[in-house]
Amino acid sequence: MLKIALAQINLLVGGIQANQKKIIQTAEQARDSLDADLIVFPELTITGYPPEDLLLRPDFIKQANQSVLDIALAVKGIDIVLGFPEQGDDCLYNSAVVLRDGEILAQYRKSTLPNFGVFDEQRYFKSVNETQLFSVKGRSIGLTICEDIWEQGLVEKNKKAGADLILTLNASPFHAGKIHQREEIVCQQAKEVEIPLVYVNLIGGQDELVFDGASFVVDAQGEVVFRAEEFEEQLSVIEFEGNTPIKSSCSPLYNEISSEYKALVLGVRDYVYKNGFKGAILGLSGGIDSALVLAIAVDALGADQVEAVLMPSKYTQDMSNEDAILEAEALGVKHHTIAIEPAVTAFTGMLSDVFNDTKRDATEENIQARCRGVLLMAMSNKFGKLLLTTGNKSEMSVGYATLYGDMAGGFAPIKDVPKLLVYQLSEYRNTLSDVIPERVITRPPSAELAPDQVDEDSLPPYSVLDPILAMYVEQDKSAEEIQAAGYQLVDINRAISLVDRNEYKRRQAPPGIKITPRAFGRDRRYPIATGYKGVG
Amino acid sequence: MLKIALAQINLLVGGIQANQKKIIQTAEQARDSLDADLIVFPELTITGYPPEDLLLRPDFIKQANQSVLDIALAVKGIDIVLGFPEQGDDCLYNSAVVLRDGEILAQYRKSTLPNFGVFDEQRYFKSVNETQLFSVKGRSIGLTICEDIWEQGLVEKNKKAGADLILTLNASPFHAGKIHQREEIVCQQAKEVEIPLVYVNLIGGQDELVFDGASFVVDAQGEVVFRAEEFEEQLSVIEFEGNTPIKSSCSPLYNEISSEYKALVLGVRDYVYKNGFKGAILGLSGGIDSALVLAIAVDALGADQVEAVLMPSKYTQDMSNEDAILEAEALGVKHHTIAIEPAVTAFTGMLSDVFNDTKRDATEENIQARCRGVLLMAMSNKFGKLLLTTGNKSEMSVGYATLYGDMAGGFAPIKDVPKLLVYQLSEYRNTLSDVIPERVITRPPSAELAPDQVDEDSLPPYSVLDPILAMYVEQDKSAEEIQAAGYQLVDINRAISLVDRNEYKRRQAPPGIKITPRAFGRDRRYPIATGYKGVG
Repeated sequence: MLKIALAQINLLVGGIQANQKKIIQTAEQARDSLDADLIVFPELTITGYPPEDLLLRPDFIKQANQSVLDIALAVKGIDIVLGFPEQGDDCLYNSAVVLRDGEILAQYRKSTLPNFGVFDEQRYFKSVNETQLFSVKGRSIGLTICEDIWEQGLVEKNKKAGADLILTLNASPFHAGKIHQREEIVCQQAKEVEIPLVYVNLIGGQDELVFDGASFVVDAQGEVVFRAEEFEEQLSVIEFEGNTPIKSSCSPLYNEISSEYKALVLGVRDYVYKNGFKGAILGLSGGIDSALVLAIAVDALGADQVEAVLMPSKYTQDMSNEDAILEAEALGVKHHTIAIEPAVTAFTGMLSDVFNDTKRDATEENIQARCRGVLLMAMSNKFGKLLLTTGNKSEMSVGYATLYGDMAGGFAPIKDVPKLLVYQLSEYRNTLSDVIPERVITRPPSAELAPDQVDEDSLPPYSVLDPILAMYVEQDKSAEEIQAAGYQLVDINRAISLVDRNEYKRRQAPPGIKITPRAFGRDRRYPIATGYKGVG
Repeated sequence: MLKIALAQINLLVGGIQANQKKIIQTAEQARDSLDADLIVFPELTITGYPPEDLLLRPDFIKQANQSVLDIALAVKGIDIVLGFPEQGDDCLYNSAVVLRDGEILAQYRKSTLPNFGVFDEQRYFKSVNETQLFSVKGRSIGLTICEDIWEQGLVEKNKKAGADLILTLNASPFHAGKIHQREEIVCQQAKEVEIPLVYVNLIGGQDELVFDGASFVVDAQGEVVFRAEEFEEQLSVIEFEGNTPIKSSCSPLYNEISSEYKALVLGVRDYVYKNGFKGAILGLSGGIDSALVLAIAVDALGADQVEAVLMPSKYTQDMSNEDAILEAEALGVKHHTIAIEPAVTAFTGMLSDVFNDTKRDATEENIQARCRGVLLMAMSNKFGKLLLTTGNKSEMSVGYATLYGDMAGGFAPIKDVPKLLVYQLSEYRNTLSDVIPERVITRPPSAELAPDQVDEDSLPPYSVLDPILAMYVEQDKSAEEIQAAGYQLVDINRAISLVDRNEYKRRQAPPGIKITPRAFGRDRRYPIATGYKGVG
């Protein structure tokens, strides 16, 4: 009987000492409590993923390589398979190493280096196209790393080289639908090549990314025989009879909306704690966006770690304040109310000379939003709480947000959540417990920066805007193609020209959690100064 | 006699229509006024450089490929060599094409795709390792693109394939010393392989990058026989007798400080105009940073396009206001004075309840800086002028700046200029005409956010800080190595821990002009949440 442990753990990017300690403890636990012969860790275990330009620092690479040797000496009696940035002659490899009783038994170097979307691996690593097998209890075991198994060829090559089963070390970030897509591809490969595969994924939030775990084992017939939980740390063991993994517990594959919600919660929790903040603070407007962010923050950090601030103006309707208070109370969150009028009045007076003879425009709306930004940042600075920004992806796309105003903050949890999905996630959260008042979901959205303002004064309805944005931003469709999909050119051109014009705002936006196939941030790299116009 | 024209022109990223028009006009001028047989344009002429993720848009690629055919048909009687993103089967190439009388005569695909620093070419392009020669007036001509000639091998390969001379299309961005480095490498290659080279570089600012031009021709002995101006558009022609370029005008290689200043001026000019702003606005404090930015802005845009705002507080010394006014007057710039006290008082009052029983800390300083940010952004919004941020690289490194306060703005001209270089550039600018009062250069720098505050209260002196920062940020040196270079560990650790902790601020900073080997922005990609600590 061969027992393989899957270490689905949360690591800290750059935290070599902390990661080393966790790797050693997890390996010892697998050996002592689970009686495992072998334990598999995620990709780049030692450094966390993605370490980005820390990989260019010789001192960092030296520490990481030393750490592998330290772990080898520290844990004996179990084979350890882990990932690290291997120092080669004048280059780095994204490597997996097998440690046995103080020695390096085998070393595999990643073949397929992703350099698209959020990935920049060709910036750092050299690719090597060679299989590397090692043997445990008479089985010959092949090694692959993440992107390797998204390409055809390497699994088969391992089989031909004599592998009885294949281990895959991964740092595969979440977006909606990714978990299913990932399993499908891996199962297809296992089935075609007729070889079992052990897939270990990272979990945890790292800046814009959330790694969702959901590690699994697939047999040579392409059937999933084990699956770990999504978004949670889990140390599991799977037994092999001959080369066949024995069917074990399979955590369910949840529906998309619940996975998305979990991703947002984990993303906020890890951003707050990995950055050493004492909880979070946010502005609560009575609108749906801040209501959802409040629920996510409380689910991530606990009600006692979150504070809400109401900052009404003369344009704020009573029901907005009422609903905001209901939200805070439903979740048991401390809340403050500070009216912004004194600061708005001060600025209006200070600018009256230079603004003499000018017409009221978006400037005056921005001043209100920026007064709120100053208040929230002051409280964040004074109390060491991270300011969460509450803007959604639809707003980020079209620039319907004030730079240094409602865009102020350290982290933007729903930055990659389109408005229609904000509604769906809010309704989903209410199915768990009632926290967002019905009226917040049903009333027309408004920025409340001018009398009787609603979003639809300036934008197409979200039921039209969101699909147009998804096609333009996430799928690179042209205006013509979007029109062919059934939308009006006037709406398409309005949306596209706003997206094109507002790259400068997005460039200064706080990071947020990627949950779609293409988020703003590292995932979408656009010039600010550009003559490109996507309008049709 | 063979006449080759060098088109050192300023292109607009993504502006295919505008670029096409300019390419056609320039080619016609080379044919009609310079009697050229052949004209060479910079890398990715059609799209500008770098087009970033616009390259992922099928509609954009289609337009770019169509544009090449349109140019071929539009201009006859001269060979045109230009760059464009060539659509291949399921991939893109960074290609150079030779157009002759309506036909595509030859097509070369870039071999070495840079994927380091600011470059992400492997994100988009597939590399091809094949030479491509064409023939004009009996000479066999080889083609290379930018990074190709920084690597050994391709020049020699072209010579072996029969090339008599080599054309290089470039988009090589500026940093201090780059112009010399570039010529040295190219001349070395020409000399070793004994072949003349025609090097055409882009000019112009594009977001964080400035392309400096300085196109040149080197003969088979490795001697530069022609050089175009730095930082200016220039259409030139060089004659070849046999395979030997005839010595022509060589614009000088300027010293580093003057090249840096020109880069900053061009960077500001192009960012303002390519983004369609009506001039620029900035806060003028009486300190050296804003004084230098004002001079750069005026040199870039003209005095009538720039406005300055003085925003004194109770901590502002009289001499600061006096000097700020002297600066504005010396440059003939319109200036306003708005005291920030009313807004600061308003916020202090609004926060008095929640801040009850707390001690004064950086929060109160940040409120002042943010009141200035609100005022400047209001004026920027109202008058359509780009707000220039005045922070320098030393501040950006250690986070000695207020997010949404003095960091507010659309563009940060001296973001990559360390403080000591701010002084040198100011002194250099004063050698051209006296615009920065002597006292601004000699008085100790201060943020003036608290009584009698000076920078050295919080930071090591800049003469110590700047070299430490250069070693840590630009050269990836460890604390140990910096100590070995003669600095005190206490200063090193103070500086490094501030750099490490302030990535979150830099992530929300406006773009600025790269002038060092490694700027903040696309050039340096660090995680925010990280356990890495560089301290020794």
